[in-house]
Amino acid sequence: MKREETFNFSAGPSVLPEEALERAGKEILNYNGSGMSVMEMSHRSAFFQEIFDETKAKLRAALSVPDTHDILFLQGGASAQFSMVPLNLMEGGTADYAVTGNFSNIAAKEAQKYGTVHIAASSRDDNFSYIPPQSALDLSPEAKYFHYCANNTIYGTAWSYVPETPAPLVCDMSSEILSRPVDVSKYGVIYAGAQKNMAPAGVTVVIIDRSLAGREAPYTPLIMSYKTMIEKDSMYNTPPCWCIYMLGLVLDWLKSQGGVRGMEAIKHEKAAVIYDVIDNSALYKPCARRDSRSDMNVTFRTGDPELDALFARDAQARGLMNLKGHRSVGGMRASLYNAQSMEGVKTLAAFMKEFEREHHV
Amino acid sequence: MKREETFNFSAGPSVLPEEALERAGKEILNYNGSGMSVMEMSHRSAFFQEIFDETKAKLRAALSVPDTHDILFLQGGASAQFSMVPLNLMEGGTADYAVTGNFSNIAAKEAQKYGTVHIAASSRDDNFSYIPPQSALDLSPEAKYFHYCANNTIYGTAWSYVPETPAPLVCDMSSEILSRPVDVSKYGVIYAGAQKNMAPAGVTVVIIDRSLAGREAPYTPLIMSYKTMIEKDSMYNTPPCWCIYMLGLVLDWLKSQGGVRGMEAIKHEKAAVIYDVIDNSALYKPCARRDSRSDMNVTFRTGDPELDALFARDAQARGLMNLKGHRSVGGMRASLYNAQSMEGVKTLAAFMKEFEREHHV
Repeated sequence: MKREETFNFSAGPSVLPEEALERAGKEILNYNGSGMSVMEMSHRSAFFQEIFDETKAKLRAALSVPDTHDILFLQGGASAQFSMVPLNLMEGGTADYAVTGNFSNIAAKEAQKYGTVHIAASSRDDNFSYIPPQSALDLSPEAKYFHYCANNTIYGTAWSYVPETPAPLVCDMSSEILSRPVDVSKYGVIYAGAQKNMAPAGVTVVIIDRSLAGREAPYTPLIMSYKTMIEKDSMYNTPPCWCIYMLGLVLDWLKSQGGVRGMEAIKHEKAAVIYDVIDNSALYKPCARRDSRSDMNVTFRTGDPELDALFARDAQARGLMNLKGHRSVGGMRASLYNAQSMEGVKTLAAFMKEFEREHHV
Repeated sequence: MKREETFNFSAGPSVLPEEALERAGKEILNYNGSGMSVMEMSHRSAFFQEIFDETKAKLRAALSVPDTHDILFLQGGASAQFSMVPLNLMEGGTADYAVTGNFSNIAAKEAQKYGTVHIAASSRDDNFSYIPPQSALDLSPEAKYFHYCANNTIYGTAWSYVPETPAPLVCDMSSEILSRPVDVSKYGVIYAGAQKNMAPAGVTVVIIDRSLAGREAPYTPLIMSYKTMIEKDSMYNTPPCWCIYMLGLVLDWLKSQGGVRGMEAIKHEKAAVIYDVIDNSALYKPCARRDSRSDMNVTFRTGDPELDALFARDAQARGLMNLKGHRSVGGMRASLYNAQSMEGVKTLAAFMKEFEREHHV
């Protein structure tokens, strides 16, 4: 298939801005007159140091990260942070976790290795189809931090509010970072695997209030110490250079689109196109409750697993790729990250209507 | 500078085969008719699964990895393995470490967090300029494993023999993997950061005798369990897809060059060109003892730090990049990994002679 004939709705790794890929392709044999690919550069070279510093500066500007917070480029994705957060912040004590989906559940289980986990909220009772309100949060007075996942990729739900808690907020923003402005000063730690809204898989962004670092457990692996990584500016060991470079190119594109405010302005509009089809359909049912819907991952189903599978297959034949829902929810999932175009969204909406006309009895 | 005017002697990340970069550039917007970049593909997609399986199969073939051993593609480089090895294999007991350079020293220090480290050999007494012989290894009868670093990038030394030990061998092969055949059956664990001889920084290859897995400490971070990664075929979490794809392209190139036997045949020849200049020079002194010399990293110095600095600067102006030695050794270092051409090596040798004529009084 030609690139212009496909729209990629993958939940992650996912579609990247074509401008970023084109520029990477042009520079792949020789970056900026260095005579080398970025993939071949010493991470200690002046060429790469400049890429690194500029990418960090672009991210700091894009999210208005205050001076109190450091930006780290690490490896291992959100999964590494599930361990790194409790190893560094829990001090063997208690932490509050909100369990609103698969990944926040894994994060909570992982933290049990390192201290006492208090489940401050859960939406398991209704298959994670909603986000508990502030009034339902059961907060421990002694919690070292409160952990939540802002957007639940699998279930298609998102927190519409920032929790108010006495403990520092720790937030997994993997599937919504850079889609809207965030008041970073409200957070102790924000982390995000890059492969949804930022860059190819392989780099993890951590934004941390540096006053929280330096309390790691004695058995914390070397590369999992926030303190070490802050002191070494993410270069204790060789960083994932190519992914950091790609993040820089994506941030250039983001800026040209009006930054996170530009993304916020269209993300709800894009999601509304699909939710409108669902809400006006006799065939499609939404998986998430209306007040908890995600703009990034729209989940729906027909109720008939065979018809769901046919939908994904037929869509794929039309160039609408990766619409199969996660196995734990079933149905369909359309991921509408920053780089997903309104054209892609409208093509999907038209296909959904056509499919309903053909298959709804 | 033009690519064809430069030779990159970086110790890592380092030069990659031009064919691999060219092919990546051609496919960067649309891989194999998928309509997507490899950077945008779901790691669960059929397209990526094929890349993953084929890359693993190519690596298994290239190194003749026996069926007893699994191949893992992880993140965090050798530094992550410094923790992962003791977390998984030490069981709180004793492990033997040979300290022959900076990285094996860090590995040994890291293991002290998880059990008793016995230094079975060290060449610290002569600034890591040599590799201790088999007869000098002081092995503990109760050791869970024996850890060594096959090639010491910073000091320019390499083990010329495979240690004979009652405990399973664990070897950091980051800076020599794929440069020669290895009898993998002799090893419990081989690991290597990719950024020297295999791929861009961001993927770590682990080859493990699967009978050693499943003994991890209870506080082992989720993604640092060999058992979990073996069970999930390296996809417990999202792998570094682009780097794995690049590794596949590099392995295609390697095969076209006669595989690891082809590399072995020329690596000594390439290194000899530079060592010959050093051995016949009144200006350059080798940093490593003759019987411990590495073919991958050739280290030398003039004895005058200012002249060393001038050498690196003048070389760079001629397109001979990244020849400055590591700060802990000083002098110069020429890394001659697989993708370094004989043309590059000869150009460096000619420059060295010219520099000596000009500057040796």
